[in-house]
Amino acid sequence: MSRRGERPSPETLASLPVAVDAMGGDKAPVEIIAGARRVASDDGIPIMLVGPPGLVGDTLGLPLFECTEVIAMDEDPAGGVRRKKDSSLVRAAELVRDGQASAMVSAGNTGATMAAALLRMGRLPGVIRPCIATPLPRLGRTPAVLVDAGANAECTPAMLVQFAQMGAAYASARWGTEAPTVGLLSIGEESTKGTPLVKETHGLLVKESGFEFVGNLEGRDLLPSPADVIVTDGFTGNVALKALEGSLRFLFDAMLGVFGTNDETKAAADVLLPYLLPMAAEFEPENTGGAMLLGTDGVCVISHGSSNATAMVNAVRVAFECATRGLVEHVAEAVLPAQGG
Amino acid sequence: MSRRGERPSPETLASLPVAVDAMGGDKAPVEIIAGARRVASDDGIPIMLVGPPGLVGDTLGLPLFECTEVIAMDEDPAGGVRRKKDSSLVRAAELVRDGQASAMVSAGNTGATMAAALLRMGRLPGVIRPCIATPLPRLGRTPAVLVDAGANAECTPAMLVQFAQMGAAYASARWGTEAPTVGLLSIGEESTKGTPLVKETHGLLVKESGFEFVGNLEGRDLLPSPADVIVTDGFTGNVALKALEGSLRFLFDAMLGVFGTNDETKAAADVLLPYLLPMAAEFEPENTGGAMLLGTDGVCVISHGSSNATAMVNAVRVAFECATRGLVEHVAEAVLPAQGG
Repeated sequence: MSRRGERPSPETLASLPVAVDAMGGDKAPVEIIAGARRVASDDGIPIMLVGPPGLVGDTLGLPLFECTEVIAMDEDPAGGVRRKKDSSLVRAAELVRDGQASAMVSAGNTGATMAAALLRMGRLPGVIRPCIATPLPRLGRTPAVLVDAGANAECTPAMLVQFAQMGAAYASARWGTEAPTVGLLSIGEESTKGTPLVKETHGLLVKESGFEFVGNLEGRDLLPSPADVIVTDGFTGNVALKALEGSLRFLFDAMLGVFGTNDETKAAADVLLPYLLPMAAEFEPENTGGAMLLGTDGVCVISHGSSNATAMVNAVRVAFECATRGLVEHVAEAVLPAQGG
Repeated sequence: MSRRGERPSPETLASLPVAVDAMGGDKAPVEIIAGARRVASDDGIPIMLVGPPGLVGDTLGLPLFECTEVIAMDEDPAGGVRRKKDSSLVRAAELVRDGQASAMVSAGNTGATMAAALLRMGRLPGVIRPCIATPLPRLGRTPAVLVDAGANAECTPAMLVQFAQMGAAYASARWGTEAPTVGLLSIGEESTKGTPLVKETHGLLVKESGFEFVGNLEGRDLLPSPADVIVTDGFTGNVALKALEGSLRFLFDAMLGVFGTNDETKAAADVLLPYLLPMAAEFEPENTGGAMLLGTDGVCVISHGSSNATAMVNAVRVAFECATRGLVEHVAEAVLPAQGG
């Protein structure tokens, strides 16, 4: 349930700062603050850093919401949020809840970020469990969205149907995708393949009307995905996403190794790199704007733990755009009709 | 339970032919027979083709075990095996069961191949469910093994422990790996992460002594895997494996697209391709020898549905090597002690 009253209008949200957890991530606070400063000056997006004054140092004009605690990257998420009520993560979520920020962004402890957003902003009406939506590149097209990319290791068919609804709303709000297509991740195209969870979800998705269900997809369909939204449980989604990240990194590294073999290969690589790098950039998590938590009553972007300044710039952009385009309203509307049916 | 009496000795197995399903796969029978001929002449491995005489055509000296039926690639596996008692798949499995072949190889209907092997050869004593082991490349090292790569969408912790045992026995038999290491696929390194299945399996693997359990692995650890064996349920394993295959193909295709941009990039690519192709070859499923069914009382290699002659050569080699190195005995011994404990 929402803990707030009326949601702010898009105009109000555009005037509110994005709350940036200055202490979240392996490269915090230096890279986080650098990214926040850059996106504030380049894009004019209002920023509110959240962190302890001593640690943050010179914020060079960015406003700072002061707090006294930090939840560590490897800290128990639920316990951290419960105990550290004055932590940067909890305070950032409260700023959104209280209508003082349009969205929150953190590259910190993923579980704690989810817990803080869930406990402080609350779930949207009818949402069983929030999920994480992660973009998957489709060279030259808008990315596809994988839901759930890791929030819920255990899922029910009703949860997966909501992930589809929320993922479709996200694709519409973020990329303007009209009539998003949705595929269900399984181990064969036939509706009879997969676990009981997948088979039952398949039967439910066929009856949904808020998007076009294109049936089951397989692991090999993830890059590039023929559907705008790929639905799966958070365990499978997390394994698949990390398998993709790992294999692409493995192959890029192996390729760079080959390029450095001798002078001739180095010269050839110099010719090709200007063409290869833009392609590689599409696969870089730092350029995709991070993962979006869907189903909470407020926008929360979860950036990669290894986020640098560029990753923060993109994460803040995505958070700001989605907040001002009414992502929360879209997700709320996508889920609600199913509750009456 | 085994349907046979004494297992043949390694010497006897080396003298027996490998039963090759001439009708299995998208490129059957032409590429299958071409591969069988090549491996018979190059390696001196005895071959017994299994297929209808009219369809097989000129086998050029290879013996043919005649049958009258074929199970189609998209046919219902269990129904096909039950109804088509004189199919090439069923007859190939019977040749192994009856001690007339050392192993069977098929690029046909995966489900039907598993069903035929399971129903005709039988399970090894104590094996709950057979699983599929698929090699994952580790450039310049022996491959790692993913179990289960898709045989069982639903698993219990006891099944996953057996997959670990059987996977370790396979690594030893095929690559001579001493004291194989085993990792459990999850969504975090901590033993508290993952589904109830993963958490309970983690607790059981810690107590196993037939291999070294290195703890949880994540999707990004699949390429290259730090463990010799990666254990997971068949749903997650199949999704992850196909995600890897798909992403590598996607990236290779994208790279080739870049290479063809203009005359300058084409010339540069000509320099690099001799170095890149051997690397790409390590990722090609046709070179890995296919997937191995573990837990049946006889060797069964499941080759990719798109297998060409080269894929068949490698699949037959793997089948012959594993049969003559006593893979079935190793797997039986790996599983049995657990039954007494």
